Amino acid sequence: MGKEITSRSEDYSQWYLDVVKKADLAENSDVRGCMVIKPYGYSIWEKMQQGLDKMFKDTGHVNAYFPLFVPKSLFEAEEKNAEGFAKECAIVTHYRLKTDPNNKGKLIVDPDAKLEEELVVRPTSEAIIWSTYKKWIQSYRDLPILINQWANVVRWEMRTRLFLRTAEFLWQEGHTAHSTEKEAVAETVQMLDVYADFAENFMALPVIRGRKSESERFPGAIDTYCIEAMMQDGKALQAGTSHFLGQNFAKAFDVKFTSKEGKLESVWGTSWGVSTRLMGALIMAHSDDDGLIIPPKLAPIHVVIVPIFKTEEELEKISAKVQELTSALRKQGLSVKFDNRDTHKPGFKFAEYEMRGVPVRIAIGPRDLESGTVELARRDTKEKKVYAFDEVVKIVTPLLDEIQANIYQRALKFREEKTTYVDTYEDLKKVLDDKGGFVMAHWDGTAETEAIIKDETKATIRCIPLDAPEEQGKCVYSGKPSSRRVVFARAY
Amino acid sequence: MGKEITSRSEDYSQWYLDVVKKADLAENSDVRGCMVIKPYGYSIWEKMQQGLDKMFKDTGHVNAYFPLFVPKSLFEAEEKNAEGFAKECAIVTHYRLKTDPNNKGKLIVDPDAKLEEELVVRPTSEAIIWSTYKKWIQSYRDLPILINQWANVVRWEMRTRLFLRTAEFLWQEGHTAHSTEKEAVAETVQMLDVYADFAENFMALPVIRGRKSESERFPGAIDTYCIEAMMQDGKALQAGTSHFLGQNFAKAFDVKFTSKEGKLESVWGTSWGVSTRLMGALIMAHSDDDGLIIPPKLAPIHVVIVPIFKTEEELEKISAKVQELTSALRKQGLSVKFDNRDTHKPGFKFAEYEMRGVPVRIAIGPRDLESGTVELARRDTKEKKVYAFDEVVKIVTPLLDEIQANIYQRALKFREEKTTYVDTYEDLKKVLDDKGGFVMAHWDGTAETEAIIKDETKATIRCIPLDAPEEQGKCVYSGKPSSRRVVFARAY
Repeated sequence: MGKEITSRSEDYSQWYLDVVKKADLAENSDVRGCMVIKPYGYSIWEKMQQGLDKMFKDTGHVNAYFPLFVPKSLFEAEEKNAEGFAKECAIVTHYRLKTDPNNKGKLIVDPDAKLEEELVVRPTSEAIIWSTYKKWIQSYRDLPILINQWANVVRWEMRTRLFLRTAEFLWQEGHTAHSTEKEAVAETVQMLDVYADFAENFMALPVIRGRKSESERFPGAIDTYCIEAMMQDGKALQAGTSHFLGQNFAKAFDVKFTSKEGKLESVWGTSWGVSTRLMGALIMAHSDDDGLIIPPKLAPIHVVIVPIFKTEEELEKISAKVQELTSALRKQGLSVKFDNRDTHKPGFKFAEYEMRGVPVRIAIGPRDLESGTVELARRDTKEKKVYAFDEVVKIVTPLLDEIQANIYQRALKFREEKTTYVDTYEDLKKVLDDKGGFVMAHWDGTAETEAIIKDETKATIRCIPLDAPEEQGKCVYSGKPSSRRVVFARAY
Repeated sequence: MGKEITSRSEDYSQWYLDVVKKADLAENSDVRGCMVIKPYGYSIWEKMQQGLDKMFKDTGHVNAYFPLFVPKSLFEAEEKNAEGFAKECAIVTHYRLKTDPNNKGKLIVDPDAKLEEELVVRPTSEAIIWSTYKKWIQSYRDLPILINQWANVVRWEMRTRLFLRTAEFLWQEGHTAHSTEKEAVAETVQMLDVYADFAENFMALPVIRGRKSESERFPGAIDTYCIEAMMQDGKALQAGTSHFLGQNFAKAFDVKFTSKEGKLESVWGTSWGVSTRLMGALIMAHSDDDGLIIPPKLAPIHVVIVPIFKTEEELEKISAKVQELTSALRKQGLSVKFDNRDTHKPGFKFAEYEMRGVPVRIAIGPRDLESGTVELARRDTKEKKVYAFDEVVKIVTPLLDEIQANIYQRALKFREEKTTYVDTYEDLKKVLDDKGGFVMAHWDGTAETEAIIKDETKATIRCIPLDAPEEQGKCVYSGKPSSRRVVFARAY
């Protein structure tokens, strides 16, 4: 296993694709724009799912499952949503193949099996879910409904990139229904906070919580909240969104309830989602020129143990000692792998587990057995240190916490260094070109200014931060008054 | 919540649909043949997933994810498989909608966005997976590949029924690749055993492990193994299948490997799956005229505690005591719900949790507080018994084991009573008509006889049991020699 990955400084995009490939995370399939998530990549996604699923359940949500297909007439009911997704929908028009009469052994679409109404492969599930909620909701007693779905969705993107933008991707989508606006807004913000918590505490990824400008909102939403993260090339990546839908979908699907006061009212809604895109964020935020770096909380393997041996007898002796170690570490809830393959040399294995981002590597050879020690290497800093057997059992768990914290701090420090406050349009452009990163600037709040800046700089308003202090200033472009800086950046 | 379900004796089919509806498990959607799995139903499915997923991982499998779509040219590569599924495939032909020029606000399929090659929504994933394995396999060192996928699949069934037969369903599909026939056959049988283990020990569902006759095989398989269960109406239900694919898919997709001896050989394959159909089996095997009965190992709620109170003061006192109880039970790993709603009476709640199949119900009122007791009711037998507080904490966990065992034994006893050995065709027909159930009879092994019997009796050969003793006999239809009885039954 050579270190055949392009360095970040040479070509960041290629470096990303190399890491995805060499760490065995995913690959392109024979279907345009659709990826195969390979076992190692999927095992990281499973860790993400477990972490998120628990947080959703802890905040009172339950899982359910709704159909993959949306009949066209339902799909078009909420006009803005339909308009927003119409251009990238896979459409099922037929329900049968038949043998090609002119070419035996080949199949053709059976023209007699045309659907009366075409089906849209869900790009998102608001339409099918709100058409279902209509049947479930009559009274305020039926509310709130707090449902999440783990599913695949399809958006026919023209330019795709593993994990970051694929025609089919995996995600979770929460869809909640409430009796009051206040409650729905609170839910929207709560789920944004859940995402921020997950990003920071599981993914070790510092994020800015904010609201999207009107032009960047989810189609059909009144307000879109998001978390924005910075990648190592200084570009922004939207890592999760939470939408306050107002009564838009309730009105489109005629979902009304009788309030406590006996009045018939439209239901308030939210939706929120994160996807396998998070895998892309995880990779791009932390990894280095030797491969993947995974925060311990999402690592499928916490510790890999590599024996250094020449003879079978040596391996046997080492294995006996390793068994004590693995058993002690597993009792602490750690995932431990002992790689005793005799087909590969230790150096090859070292590089392989570095590539795969295993947080802690322990090497143990005949001399270690004599001295009662092991050599431990951290993936994040590449530091190596020798520990006594008894000691190593005690230090691994706290070390993993330290690694988790270190990865987060490193990303936070990077983001802070790459965040610049500017007060003129010249500076905005200059910083975007020379330094990149997040540029904090005043904006007059108009879509016109936003569009011009986007057109001229390729930077978008990533969000209007929730935590930024109020600050009187002037829009860098128009000079009109502004009360808060927003985040400009080029983005994935 | 009235007991508005049809009795089993009156109309078994309607009883099933009533239980699915009243226990809030699933409902039909606005998409033909596709269901909505409601939160309570989905929580049982999640329990099934967890149980199965652990068993797959314990037997060395890993999860991965492959595309939803299969290009038509790949789909048709394995001819028998393609032929078997061609008649029930949803086909994506376009990738965009546009505004209807004649009807603003409505959308039409954009004729300019026709795909060059149509995409089949996967009815099963052998084609897309083997076309991927081709890239992964060069040498014997790359084998075995032991992969499972949790996914949705679509089979355009004309007559659908919640959980049992739906156009879209959720399932897991294992796809493994091996260097030898022996290893692939062993894998096929191993996974059949995993399914039997899961059915018997989680679902409390006795099953017969067997092989399908040639005409009932999975399209593209050399051999199909299955587990067959009996429902309460005496009909059979296929609860899981495991296929030995031989080299069929390897040859169709040109997947070859270099053996240890340096020879280029085709890879051997297996595939195996169970689906949300298991939900249907679970319901139909155990439930009664009061609703669902769930074996404790799959119950989302093990214990529900219902307070009996008139005043808020009474509820407060009861709640304090209940808190001790729930905390003690949760420490044992049990899922406990305290239903303290003041909007519904205890009798209503009792019926509701019976309908939902919660294995143990504990009721506690002011008099119980005085006497230091609770009333406990088992869902499976409807027995009620009074226990002292201290005692109840100790008996619930063993009681749940007892309930699990009892539900299994009841189903086993039922199956045994409904299994009949016959030696003439007259008896076969008579038993099928009068008594139903499994009929064990000799068969000459020919597809002709099988077809005639199926046509005349509506019964199919469910399987050739693996565990049945060899026994010389004569085919009930043709009189030709047979060495083993097979299972005939009408089936779902």
